Amino acid sequence: MSQLDEVVGEIADEMRRHTDRGDVASYIPELARVDPGAFGLAVVDAEGNVAAAGDADVPFSIQSISKVFTLTLALGKAGDRLWRRVGREPSGSPFNSIVQLEREKGIPRNPFINAGAIAVTDVILSGHQPREALGEILRFMQALADDPAIAIDRAVAASEQRTGFRNAALANYMKSFGVLENPVEFTLGVYFHHCAIAMSCRQLATAGRFLAHLGRNPTTGMSIVSPERARRINAIMLTCGHYDGSGEFAYRVGLPGKSGVGGGILAIAPGKASIAVWSPGLDAAGNSHLGRIALEALTKRMGWSVFGT
Amino acid sequence: MSQLDEVVGEIADEMRRHTDRGDVASYIPELARVDPGAFGLAVVDAEGNVAAAGDADVPFSIQSISKVFTLTLALGKAGDRLWRRVGREPSGSPFNSIVQLEREKGIPRNPFINAGAIAVTDVILSGHQPREALGEILRFMQALADDPAIAIDRAVAASEQRTGFRNAALANYMKSFGVLENPVEFTLGVYFHHCAIAMSCRQLATAGRFLAHLGRNPTTGMSIVSPERARRINAIMLTCGHYDGSGEFAYRVGLPGKSGVGGGILAIAPGKASIAVWSPGLDAAGNSHLGRIALEALTKRMGWSVFGT
Amino acid sequence: MSQLDEVVGEIADEMRRHTDRGDVASYIPELARVDPGAFGLAVVDAEGNVAAAGDADVPFSIQSISKVFTLTLALGKAGDRLWRRVGREPSGSPFNSIVQLEREKGIPRNPFINAGAIAVTDVILSGHQPREALGEILRFMQALADDPAIAIDRAVAASEQRTGFRNAALANYMKSFGVLENPVEFTLGVYFHHCAIAMSCRQLATAGRFLAHLGRNPTTGMSIVSPERARRINAIMLTCGHYDGSGEFAYRVGLPGKSGVGGGILAIAPGKASIAVWSPGLDAAGNSHLGRIALEALTKRMGWSVFGT
Amino acid sequence: MSQLDEVVGEIADEMRRHTDRGDVASYIPELARVDPGAFGLAVVDAEGNVAAAGDADVPFSIQSISKVFTLTLALGKAGDRLWRRVGREPSGSPFNSIVQLEREKGIPRNPFINAGAIAVTDVILSGHQPREALGEILRFMQALADDPAIAIDRAVAASEQRTGFRNAALANYMKSFGVLENPVEFTLGVYFHHCAIAMSCRQLATAGRFLAHLGRNPTTGMSIVSPERARRINAIMLTCGHYDGSGEFAYRVGLPGKSGVGGGILAIAPGKASIAVWSPGLDAAGNSHLGRIALEALTKRMGWSVFGT
Repeated sequence: MSQLDEVVGEIADEMRRHTDRGDVASYIPELARVDPGAFGLAVVDAEGNVAAAGDADVPFSIQSISKVFTLTLALGKAGDRLWRRVGREPSGSPFNSIVQLEREKGIPRNPFINAGAIAVTDVILSGHQPREALGEILRFMQALADDPAIAIDRAVAASEQRTGFRNAALANYMKSFGVLENPVEFTLGVYFHHCAIAMSCRQLATAGRFLAHLGRNPTTGMSIVSPERARRINAIMLTCGHYDGSGEFAYRVGLPGKSGVGGGILAIAPGKASIAVWSPGLDAAGNSHLGRIALEALTKRMGWSVFGT
Repeated sequence: MSQLDEVVGEIADEMRRHTDRGDVASYIPELARVDPGAFGLAVVDAEGNVAAAGDADVPFSIQSISKVFTLTLALGKAGDRLWRRVGREPSGSPFNSIVQLEREKGIPRNPFINAGAIAVTDVILSGHQPREALGEILRFMQALADDPAIAIDRAVAASEQRTGFRNAALANYMKSFGVLENPVEFTLGVYFHHCAIAMSCRQLATAGRFLAHLGRNPTTGMSIVSPERARRINAIMLTCGHYDGSGEFAYRVGLPGKSGVGGGILAIAPGKASIAVWSPGLDAAGNSHLGRIALEALTKRMGWSVFGT
Repeated sequence: MSQLDEVVGEIADEMRRHTDRGDVASYIPELARVDPGAFGLAVVDAEGNVAAAGDADVPFSIQSISKVFTLTLALGKAGDRLWRRVGREPSGSPFNSIVQLEREKGIPRNPFINAGAIAVTDVILSGHQPREALGEILRFMQALADDPAIAIDRAVAASEQRTGFRNAALANYMKSFGVLENPVEFTLGVYFHHCAIAMSCRQLATAGRFLAHLGRNPTTGMSIVSPERARRINAIMLTCGHYDGSGEFAYRVGLPGKSGVGGGILAIAPGKASIAVWSPGLDAAGNSHLGRIALEALTKRMGWSVFGT
Repeated sequence: MSQLDEVVGEIADEMRRHTDRGDVASYIPELARVDPGAFGLAVVDAEGNVAAAGDADVPFSIQSISKVFTLTLALGKAGDRLWRRVGREPSGSPFNSIVQLEREKGIPRNPFINAGAIAVTDVILSGHQPREALGEILRFMQALADDPAIAIDRAVAASEQRTGFRNAALANYMKSFGVLENPVEFTLGVYFHHCAIAMSCRQLATAGRFLAHLGRNPTTGMSIVSPERARRINAIMLTCGHYDGSGEFAYRVGLPGKSGVGGGILAIAPGKASIAVWSPGLDAAGNSHLGRIALEALTKRMGWSVFGT
């Protein structure tokens, strides 16, 4: 049993004993009824060894973590032209703020706040039917995670669509500035559906491996993006991956990471590992409470912080 | 001649040929008359070898780069109590914005925007006369750079004080919320003076070594801060060190860094090197234009990005 | 020929000679192709005499002027409960700003900015089909103007609906806070259609008479609202009727007034007259440029300012 | 005994019985210890008859009501050039907000928010020593109120100056944009002192008479400003005189008015009367709670609303 296996096991044990777990997202019933006691952790190292513990094989709604993968796809399609429609600076605002859009003519601050991810989705959609675009995103996730069983949770997608007025406000607002090219309801449809992809920690950590290894899956050798692009996506994850809690995550964990309101976090230790953690209770900034604590413990014990080891 | 020496020399040569150098800060005459053609670069590696090129021994006004060192000092005095008075999130705003202060009850977003650095200065000042506090900051810089000749440029300090109405607005605003403890003019006096410290690239890179090596100067063995604190200061530099251009710096350079309006940038390659660059022309966000380009070239060629090598 | 007739004729002559007429609204083709040289003015005094000049019988798109009448209707339905959904303070922002909504939990500042008028429309709609609500608004306008021929310009309504993404953003945003009760597309549909009502200056001035005479049409004796309510609607017109140019209108004209992007303005001289002016060119704040100048001349010569005569 | 005498007496009786009086300003001890039960009302009609009741002869700190008179003075000095340094639109923000200044390059929205009144004070100060400017303001008040005994409360002025960090922030901020010409401490000194003038309701109502009568004191015949300027000052009072409660005051009272944090309100019934009311308890927007209620009762019973009688 490796040191990593031990550390992962210890952390899962410690997390089990935590009583303060934050609050589960309650804006749609499908998320509200998730067990707040769930906890999963999976780490894939450079050799492809997986250390997993807890509910690491239980699928959960990846939500905004999907934004890392849609950004990757959209950069593949549009290259640096993507940056005409979305910035790459931290926003200093909550995930669904519209204030920044008014100040900056409809250009979202970065691809990881909702507005930015909707603009990125619009790029993927262009020239396609929503169904095709969604199929492309899903196949990309299946390929990365090496698991064709990964699917969209249709009930979650339907609930998001029924209640997603704030995202509709963001999308219409950007449309009024010409930042979106497709019909608003098409772009939002694809957006709500890719946020509703369900994956386990094991699948997610596997899918993120290319970001830890210069754009390439070190086991299969499959190249997803160039080394430079992988580094840059990591940089955006570090500065913008946790909304208005991005500074806190960098300060405590010291890794690029992206959280989702379903309680998952994907974190990247460059050159070392791809990590997925899941605990449904959220902190005030909307990020997994125990997820961050677990990642802080993991990087500390493994010496994986990008800021000095 | 090492690879580092070669790369540093090449970059200095390339920068010399750049015609687009940005605009030199013009709000005080002392900065306005600096030669826009100046360029210096100094890199100190883990063994203490210094690779330097161009105007690496010409002193310049370090301005906001001093905020890294005052943060270090203030954390030494107040520990985590410091964070009651200043946050550690990117601001999404220019360096001198006051809007965020109104929204957040006078608590600055982070220690590297002007308001935050003024609050940090106030912590260092507490219980002391301005002269004593300033002496402490200066001695700290001299010790870190191993050079007792480092001094404050009094003409710069006087000009800053005479024209620093926006900083006076920030300080008075925080004072109205009780975030500053000392008389506003005392805190501002110390702040304007530590921003007016003059250092060369060589001195600055030497002073930053503890951040590259877990809080310790690897040559002298002198411990400045704990490893954890060093990592955390690096994290704040990466997410907040370039104002509203922090995301861009992370995206292109991939290192923790802190810029100053005098055209300097201190960058840290954890475990590898401390780097100082100086070119007085600034980009739209107020960061050294060629400085960033030089650092981008350096990290690329040396493989020093924290986001994957 | 009365003094009023003379003054109205003179003003129309003067306006004809103005070369700086502002810019006609261009966001939809139906407004963009209106003749910028058009100018109409109609004044109905307490006795019911109409002084009219220029294009006073040419129908134009009343646009936001309809908000005065929908506010009147909604107050009749909901009474002071209306004020739970919309405030009555000047906004300090452009007509279509969304920033204020984010700061104030989806409650629009006042009923005369777009967001507020959409909320007011939602109140009228409640319990009805869009077609019924729209019919009620139209019949109200026809009755007030004593002209059953008043109609909605379907081409304008269709264009507004096709391009109204910013209003869709506002509506979805309010919906996300529960400020709207009806389906967003229903409320927006009614809103876009009542803004597309076409009326002439003569019809509009007639329709506004109840506001000049304590809630009652002094000729027919028909009571529309209580005296107190009439005064209060006038108060809101004075403080909020010209978006971010409301202070300027009060300063120069000194009457309650409401402008529309079609170039019309309805103004009320309490106890004295109801006034409608139309000139399609707009100033920077989106209010009729010559319309305001004509009203300034009219109040000055007639001594009608509410601020001293 | 006139109807006005009766109404004034009745209102004073009714106000005495109110238990909800709002909260007395507590930011300086001199205001904090004012008796919350105090209530004064004085009305001067066109003929110069004074109806007074309650504590109408007790001096209180007029605070921001002084801004009406400094605006009058500054317009006399600078004419319409004043409007290069201050706007005349409602701000949609609290009295001491700095956000608007950042958005609009240091130009305050109107002369009745703190920033605007500081800019107006700077205009009066220009070319003079603070002592001279203050003397001019005081003599102006004494002449208008026909009472050479009116004085500045030095203790209030000293307290304001000691604690006025937020106003110092506003002043320094404007100075940084070149909106203030004089040394910040000079302008602030004059500002804090004119806000500390103490007057009774009787004195204040007398001083405001020129605004009710086209710029002229109808008893002495003294002309203070042109009729147009009097109307325009009234217009600004109506749209901006109660900070973020200006819409509410127009809606309920229907008169131009200016409040002060000392609990006073000056209101103008054009052509009819000048009114001063005083009750120290404030509402959430910082305006006299009972003062507004008393004025609402007064205008209703006397039929003085500018919006229809």
